[in-house]
Amino acid sequence: MASSCLFCKIVKGAIPSAKLLETELSFAFLDIGPLSKGHALVIPKFHAEKLHEVPDEYLADLLPVAKKIATALGSENYNILQNNGRLAHQEVPHVHFHVIPKPNEREGLGIGWPAKSTDKDELKAVQESIINKL
Amino acid sequence: MASSCLFCKIVKGAIPSAKLLETELSFAFLDIGPLSKGHALVIPKFHAEKLHEVPDEYLADLLPVAKKIATALGSENYNILQNNGRLAHQEVPHVHFHVIPKPNEREGLGIGWPAKSTDKDELKAVQESIINKL
Repeated sequence: MASSCLFCKIVKGAIPSAKLLETELSFAFLDIGPLSKGHALVIPKFHAEKLHEVPDEYLADLLPVAKKIATALGSENYNILQNNGRLAHQEVPHVHFHVIPKPNEREGLGIGWPAKSTDKDELKAVQESIINKL
Repeated sequence: MASSCLFCKIVKGAIPSAKLLETELSFAFLDIGPLSKGHALVIPKFHAEKLHEVPDEYLADLLPVAKKIATALGSENYNILQNNGRLAHQEVPHVHFHVIPKPNEREGLGIGWPAKSTDKDELKAVQESIINKL
């Protein structure tokens, strides 16, 4: 826990939230600036800014919690989104997964998809460079 | 496994892919239409179209795998995205998590964020309706 972190304070109850559920390792509550009705956040009780800094046991608990919420929301269309870093649209520096219903074109997450063309040789080079670091 | 599913065929090796790693429950490979260099997909070896249909044990394995890839990519900024349903931008009907580096404004995931104003009473009503279904 980080004493100055907004989400750590929410987990501790020092700041109120519209809590949905919690487990030993995770906490879920409604986003106060929803993109659509039911927009929820699922966070680890471990303080880390980015996904790759979170211990595996906490990571493993997050999606089953997101699943419970998605099931309760009952949305046919929804997005799960987790942003790392300012440039990637992260606002609060504590890892959080958005569960965002997509009821229609207008509401919910907007997605821009600037896909690039690639070829097998390029993919193979990228693949090898990543595998070398795994 | 679903015999007609593109991603199930990739897991089985019936269709080639730029594989990064696999575990007993998950498989990771490069997206052939990348939004940025290193854009990867992490999928459960269990066939399901949407997140809420995947057994918890498979869900629990996905983010630790995504973490390994994010660490290898070494991107300061990146997004984790999983889309459910056509309206939410899902293209292949087998659950997949995108790990998308965001190297600059132009490349990577584009995000539209049509946040709505809300108030405590409205949040409380939504909270109660969800909790009743959990």
